[in-house]
Amino acid sequence: MSEYLYGHWSIMECLRASRRQIDQILLSDTVEAKGVVAEIVAIASERGVPLKRVPRRILDDLAGSLNHQNMVLRVNGYPYVEMDAVIAASKKRDEKPFILLLDLLKDPQNVGALMRVADAVGVHGIVMQERRNVAVTPSVVSASSGAVEHLQVVQVTNLVQAMRDLKAQDVWMIGLDIGPNVAPFDKTDLNMSLGLVLGSEGEGLRRLVRDTCDLLLALPMRGSVASLNVATVGSVALYAAWQARGWHGWAHA
Amino acid sequence: MSEYLYGHWSIMECLRASRRQIDQILLSDTVEAKGVVAEIVAIASERGVPLKRVPRRILDDLAGSLNHQNMVLRVNGYPYVEMDAVIAASKKRDEKPFILLLDLLKDPQNVGALMRVADAVGVHGIVMQERRNVAVTPSVVSASSGAVEHLQVVQVTNLVQAMRDLKAQDVWMIGLDIGPNVAPFDKTDLNMSLGLVLGSEGEGLRRLVRDTCDLLLALPMRGSVASLNVATVGSVALYAAWQARGWHGWAHA
Repeated sequence: MSEYLYGHWSIMECLRASRRQIDQILLSDTVEAKGVVAEIVAIASERGVPLKRVPRRILDDLAGSLNHQNMVLRVNGYPYVEMDAVIAASKKRDEKPFILLLDLLKDPQNVGALMRVADAVGVHGIVMQERRNVAVTPSVVSASSGAVEHLQVVQVTNLVQAMRDLKAQDVWMIGLDIGPNVAPFDKTDLNMSLGLVLGSEGEGLRRLVRDTCDLLLALPMRGSVASLNVATVGSVALYAAWQARGWHGWAHA
Repeated sequence: MSEYLYGHWSIMECLRASRRQIDQILLSDTVEAKGVVAEIVAIASERGVPLKRVPRRILDDLAGSLNHQNMVLRVNGYPYVEMDAVIAASKKRDEKPFILLLDLLKDPQNVGALMRVADAVGVHGIVMQERRNVAVTPSVVSASSGAVEHLQVVQVTNLVQAMRDLKAQDVWMIGLDIGPNVAPFDKTDLNMSLGLVLGSEGEGLRRLVRDTCDLLLALPMRGSVASLNVATVGSVALYAAWQARGWHGWAHA
């Protein structure tokens, strides 16, 4: 099924990643093809992607958002992968698995922000449930600045089952949680085969997901408002895990 | 001058912090006063704040946003403080100064997200320039989930001058930057009198701000999309700095 990516970075990274079938690029009839727009048009043209000029309001409709920056790409759906591909990627890079699991996240902005950080720290894959979790929609692609086009995302029927399968392959499941029975987050060496599990906005981890974790960690908090956005918690935890791996894969490491 | 805070957490934290003059609470005429709404109404009533029921569209107008959750609070402007109050707070807590400086940030979402993390890690104050930086508007309060109501924010005429004044008081200025001449971020002990300086979205630190820093640090990145949102960079850096202080002030530390 076709969908419509919008905005410069979504479109640029989709073209760079070259993983989707690309049908057409649509440009507002008033926009000048210069700067990054010209760059994108040139890449699309090299690939033989047909370009069409349309009135801006058509783009508003197709994108379902006003943040399309005068540019929409008609593509096939997001290319999800199987779990095997994630494990294979870690072996190919000769790294212990580093996986992010999302438990019923609802907000495309949060999911997109987490994808962008996941790309920056080099996770091998992201796992989320097909039902009741945001899918990789064009808004998630946009919120990730296009990063998700380069990531391996697995959609599973049942997150708990996926966690059990990973545990059977010696991947440790670490849940980020709050509460008194939770270990402080820097008391654990995260340099291990790691699945980092984040709970949904407001609700946190579901009970069965929490019970399936090998370990629960908490991000410390002081201050007056004792809550943090899940994308913030995930960003800090992903960076802590990568730091524990000695910034492996960083050009300047 | 009056302004209109909107949304449950903005209003709740404004009432809890008790720092602004509160004129009136406005409730949509269709909303039931139960749950958190009832809680807020009770606190407002205790404080003698007049309550008025109005049509929802009035709230849409006053809030300038549809995210008001049927509730608006008319208050005076944000209570900025002077730099002396920030230094005094660090002395009172017997902690080395821990200050966040923002160089011309434009996006209320980013500034709000950073404020929320700043509260969580216990910074003594946030410094930003009056001109060309977002002010603490009701959207920033909302994006911070109300956290900024508890924080000490200083608006300065000139950020570089403020940095020099802080340096004269032995506060180290550490800029978060990208590029090859920048130290990796975990090679420095951040347990010092610290001003953490973040550059604007897209532009980064201005040259003079960068030159005024004692040290520039980079957040490592690998992956395909080599950029991160400033709120993400700031969150990771603020947590790293607090971790270097041994989570001082955390109830479970």
